[in-house]
Amino acid sequence: MDLLTDEEIAAALASLPGWKRTGDVITRSVELADFRAAMLFTGAVAYLAEDANHHPDIAIAWNRVTLTLSTHSAGGLTAADIALAGRIDALG
Amino acid sequence: MDLLTDEEIAAALASLPGWKRTGDVITRSVELADFRAAMLFTGAVAYLAEDANHHPDIAIAWNRVTLTLSTHSAGGLTAADIALAGRIDALG
Repeated sequence: MDLLTDEEIAAALASLPGWKRTGDVITRSVELADFRAAMLFTGAVAYLAEDANHHPDIAIAWNRVTLTLSTHSAGGLTAADIALAGRIDALG
Repeated sequence: MDLLTDEEIAAALASLPGWKRTGDVITRSVELADFRAAMLFTGAVAYLAEDANHHPDIAIAWNRVTLTLSTHSAGGLTAADIALAGRIDALG
């Protein structure tokens, strides 16, 4: 899978307002009601990740879930990261 | 809840070989078969955390789950951390 250019990444993130780029990764931090809600959200993300065969790093700190996406095999950001970010945002 | 002394923490960790202390926290990193197995392990940890009303920070990176325990309200390590670490280890 091809790496996206800086311009392609910036254009994609314009439609993904919760996500921020830091170098070769994009991250989104979501605050839920409590730990249980954070785990349920994580379960939904995990389902989408398995479906896409593309897995974010996931950090859970009580009611906060931080997701980090990158395509390690490509060494940076690809269309797979943007696609999964979009599906995660569609969870609401 | 009272903070444990350095000696009490060292004594407790002698029975919890997977856990390492770094300052005010203890951590354990577990490698599972794959992402699905990591999520199932995380679910079991989450159940124990809710049962104990004490929640580790959880970081999932594909097949690796890293747990970090501390008692934020006490500003360091307490018996609650040691007890939950023991219950997590009892998962096998």
